Amino acid sequence: MGEPVETLEGWWVLHDFRRVDWQAWRRWPETDRAAAMDELVRLVQGWEQLEAAHEGDFALYRVAGNREDLLFLHFRPAFDELEAAKTALNKTRLGDILRPGYSYVSVVELSGYLAGGKPADPRSPELRARLEPPVPAARHVCFYPMTKRRQGADNWYMLPRSQRAVLMRSHGAIGHKYAEQVVQLISGSQGLDEWEWGVTLFADDPLAFKKIVYEMRFDEASARYADFGPFLVGTRLPGAELRAYLALR
Amino acid sequence: MGEPVETLEGWWVLHDFRRVDWQAWRRWPETDRAAAMDELVRLVQGWEQLEAAHEGDFALYRVAGNREDLLFLHFRPAFDELEAAKTALNKTRLGDILRPGYSYVSVVELSGYLAGGKPADPRSPELRARLEPPVPAARHVCFYPMTKRRQGADNWYMLPRSQRAVLMRSHGAIGHKYAEQVVQLISGSQGLDEWEWGVTLFADDPLAFKKIVYEMRFDEASARYADFGPFLVGTRLPGAELRAYLALR
Amino acid sequence: MGEPVETLEGWWVLHDFRRVDWQAWRRWPETDRAAAMDELVRLVQGWEQLEAAHEGDFALYRVAGNREDLLFLHFRPAFDELEAAKTALNKTRLGDILRPGYSYVSVVELSGYLAGGKPADPRSPELRARLEPPVPAARHVCFYPMTKRRQGADNWYMLPRSQRAVLMRSHGAIGHKYAEQVVQLISGSQGLDEWEWGVTLFADDPLAFKKIVYEMRFDEASARYADFGPFLVGTRLPGAELRAYLALR
Amino acid sequence: MGEPVETLEGWWVLHDFRRVDWQAWRRWPETDRAAAMDELVRLVQGWEQLEAAHEGDFALYRVAGNREDLLFLHFRPAFDELEAAKTALNKTRLGDILRPGYSYVSVVELSGYLAGGKPADPRSPELRARLEPPVPAARHVCFYPMTKRRQGADNWYMLPRSQRAVLMRSHGAIGHKYAEQVVQLISGSQGLDEWEWGVTLFADDPLAFKKIVYEMRFDEASARYADFGPFLVGTRLPGAELRAYLALR
Amino acid sequence: MGEPVETLEGWWVLHDFRRVDWQAWRRWPETDRAAAMDELVRLVQGWEQLEAAHEGDFALYRVAGNREDLLFLHFRPAFDELEAAKTALNKTRLGDILRPGYSYVSVVELSGYLAGGKPADPRSPELRARLEPPVPAARHVCFYPMTKRRQGADNWYMLPRSQRAVLMRSHGAIGHKYAEQVVQLISGSQGLDEWEWGVTLFADDPLAFKKIVYEMRFDEASARYADFGPFLVGTRLPGAELRAYLALR
Repeated sequence: MGEPVETLEGWWVLHDFRRVDWQAWRRWPETDRAAAMDELVRLVQGWEQLEAAHEGDFALYRVAGNREDLLFLHFRPAFDELEAAKTALNKTRLGDILRPGYSYVSVVELSGYLAGGKPADPRSPELRARLEPPVPAARHVCFYPMTKRRQGADNWYMLPRSQRAVLMRSHGAIGHKYAEQVVQLISGSQGLDEWEWGVTLFADDPLAFKKIVYEMRFDEASARYADFGPFLVGTRLPGAELRAYLALR
Repeated sequence: MGEPVETLEGWWVLHDFRRVDWQAWRRWPETDRAAAMDELVRLVQGWEQLEAAHEGDFALYRVAGNREDLLFLHFRPAFDELEAAKTALNKTRLGDILRPGYSYVSVVELSGYLAGGKPADPRSPELRARLEPPVPAARHVCFYPMTKRRQGADNWYMLPRSQRAVLMRSHGAIGHKYAEQVVQLISGSQGLDEWEWGVTLFADDPLAFKKIVYEMRFDEASARYADFGPFLVGTRLPGAELRAYLALR
Repeated sequence: MGEPVETLEGWWVLHDFRRVDWQAWRRWPETDRAAAMDELVRLVQGWEQLEAAHEGDFALYRVAGNREDLLFLHFRPAFDELEAAKTALNKTRLGDILRPGYSYVSVVELSGYLAGGKPADPRSPELRARLEPPVPAARHVCFYPMTKRRQGADNWYMLPRSQRAVLMRSHGAIGHKYAEQVVQLISGSQGLDEWEWGVTLFADDPLAFKKIVYEMRFDEASARYADFGPFLVGTRLPGAELRAYLALR
Repeated sequence: MGEPVETLEGWWVLHDFRRVDWQAWRRWPETDRAAAMDELVRLVQGWEQLEAAHEGDFALYRVAGNREDLLFLHFRPAFDELEAAKTALNKTRLGDILRPGYSYVSVVELSGYLAGGKPADPRSPELRARLEPPVPAARHVCFYPMTKRRQGADNWYMLPRSQRAVLMRSHGAIGHKYAEQVVQLISGSQGLDEWEWGVTLFADDPLAFKKIVYEMRFDEASARYADFGPFLVGTRLPGAELRAYLALR
Repeated sequence: MGEPVETLEGWWVLHDFRRVDWQAWRRWPETDRAAAMDELVRLVQGWEQLEAAHEGDFALYRVAGNREDLLFLHFRPAFDELEAAKTALNKTRLGDILRPGYSYVSVVELSGYLAGGKPADPRSPELRARLEPPVPAARHVCFYPMTKRRQGADNWYMLPRSQRAVLMRSHGAIGHKYAEQVVQLISGSQGLDEWEWGVTLFADDPLAFKKIVYEMRFDEASARYADFGPFLVGTRLPGAELRAYLALR
């Protein structure tokens, strides 16, 4: 019966969504705006340089729809840095107009289902690269949280491990099919946030998000055993283009 | 079992609902109001001209009930333009009183269920016209999102493809019955927003929205396999009438 | 199986709930308050006169509990007038303190279940009177939205029409029992708002709302097949008493 | 099958929860604060004197946790007085900082399940005392709303009356066991508010709320047939101590 | 069938989450900020000294993610002190920027399931230490509320006591496995707050929260019988470091 599978964890991950208070921003004097943007760009560009030193990574995205406006995506070696990153943003002057929105706390996870047993050496370079990845360079991002269902006859955690492995293998096969178009990052959040996993997809063509999620929905692992939270999709906004994004005229 | 059906995608779609902050608007000086309305009318009329160049389309609607006041409906060739459209509106001076409300991100979708297999040539003029349509000219609009149910014995994604095809055909037959009164636009949002599809209905008689939704509810595809989000109904507001809508006296 | 029953529709209905911003109201200068009340009373009394010309009807209610403070109830011949009524209220100066709350868009509906088949002549005076009624004169109102359940074995829309008719007849019998104490107005909202129907009860004794809803709950049509939204109960506030209601001393 | 049981009704009940806006309160000039507190204390002490004339009763409680800060609990002979009480509080100057929170509208109810049939004389002094009680003098209060479940095989309203009577008798026995520590007030809210009943418990030892609710949860009437809303627990705040509660230094 | 198990109760517990209003804080004059911080540090350090006198205990945590910013965790001998602690914080000048967030009211609980029957002497020093513990010194905290499921065939409260005991023993065994890494505090909240229990985990390595929650999810007591609320994770913030946390430059 429900025997856990081994997992390996890597970077800590924060999805920090923000809503821009354009109304307040318009009321700022022009000179204050320039200084505040300088401060924010410095902070963001500092985060963008973490990857060079393998101290994490960062990317910023413009988000479609009214639910959120921006996504500040952080990968960090230590849990405490996630809170520090949020608070650093809140403490900038522009924190006044980057109102906190949805957020998600998780940690990059590799699961033993797909590896066919515990990997020989979690310190191997190949595994470290998967556990401590840079933010993929793709132009678009899609984030959604999910939970394995425990509902009447559809209870993932009551399935025998072997059956779960079969289901996850089939699920993984769909992912492989899209491997050239979509990079998938799975991060675990049991004990950390409201859902059990976060899924972050990266692709140059945003239609690929629809295609892969649609196809996986028919897979039994999703069809019977997955509940999904909100889907949020965005477009990369390099720190250097932040001033243009915030410009009012 | 749950084998996916092919889909074709066309225009990207943004339903951008707004609530008017009349309280703030009343406090504006008369001259500021005039200049802000000019700016908004220019933006909206620019969007209304996209269709002529086949670069998308746009329509504005007054929405009934207190949940939302206006719907800015965008059809666009590229995903990024949806975020740009929202942000352009937020950056106008009138963005101060057009508070962001509900929104929906999706993409026009044709499904292989009804076509009886993958269409021969997705580049054919007939298909392009259905995938990249103008906003229908009807006086009223009804929008609702929906998801196919995955609940115990009522699990759409576990049905064999042939059974889903039969159910969708019956469902489509009801749509055909109303074809003269109601134009249906189906847009997919798996991987893009909170529900799996958006449905946008267009009709000159708003009672037709009630009639078609009521009749479809008895259809097994809806009765057993559909969950619905909010229904929002509105009346077309041509950009040229925006000043009258916003006038306070 | 789920064959629809015929319906007839009459007046369009808007339940427009408002929360009074007493804090803001207290800050208004005394003279501004008087002028704003004059404006609102004129608007409301105009609505109260619609019935004389059979152009709809209107009633205002004070609502118990903190969820809402007032209910502006509109019956109108055309859908567009519902949005116009909301916006007219928002545009008054008192709109500043009558903050939009819950609302409900629906249309008066007569169902073929009870009539035993489609009525001979929907233009008959008796049917018109039921489809285009005045707001009943009773002192109290109770509003709640509801949806017929589609859940596992309890799926209203999968029942054969004959079984639904039996259930509705039994349900109607309870209504008849209370006919002298409670006037029931059923309005359909499929395709129009979040639930499938709105129920508006009118009675001089508010205890009657509890008695009829309690008794109906045991009826199979409710017990197995109905899901209910919020219940909101109020007391009639004639337009002429609006100034007293708003008076701060 | 689901045959209703007779009920008797007494006082109308309003649970009016409030959140204190301490931020705004701190900004008031000292002299304004004193006058506003005088006004509020007069209103509250007037309510506290209703019981002497058997015109209802009132008690005020400080509420634990951030969801609510105060509970104004009203018992009144007439429904309309509930709305009047809320509005009277909103119209005081301190209404500015006593922001409306959760509320509950119900009416004291005696059920025929426990009495073993309809009581001989609803006008008897003993019944009147139970239907029109004073607020018990206990130091602590616990309020929660509940609904009898209608879910698949667990459908209270489809049970035969005799079986419901057995379940309610067992449920009542637990109540009796705690009779010396906990006074229970059951008020019905079908047709009046979002849940079907309100339960208000009164005890000198707040641990008794945990003990009785925990034990009842194992009773089949709760275990299979009850859904619960929020639980809110408070401590009596006599009107005479209101100034101390509101004092900022 | 569902026979309750005995419980013992100790300290009352308040989880008082707060969101920092950095925007307002930035607008304060420098000198006001210093005085307000002095006042808050005095309050917090007073709470931190309760443990020395065995009058309860207190700890403050920085919380990851945008949902909450700080957790003020109180253990107290009496229920009334929980409300007093919240109100004392609200009455400080910094209460203006420590906006009330989520909160949870509960009481430390020991259950008879694990002890194998009612402990001989609830006054024994060993039991008192478990019922009236200090806040564990660990660097990180994880809080989540939970409820035992009552859903169709998965109804915890309908299980015989012996079966529940077996399930809880297996559940406890997982806890024991993590005993060196994670301190678990179980507090009961039936009749006190929205869920039935609060679980507060303390660990130096935050990954331990993920590991223990993940492993327990496969345990039948969780897999079939537990529903979980939000998970909130934080890092200890000693009162002495509060000024640095609040510093804006």
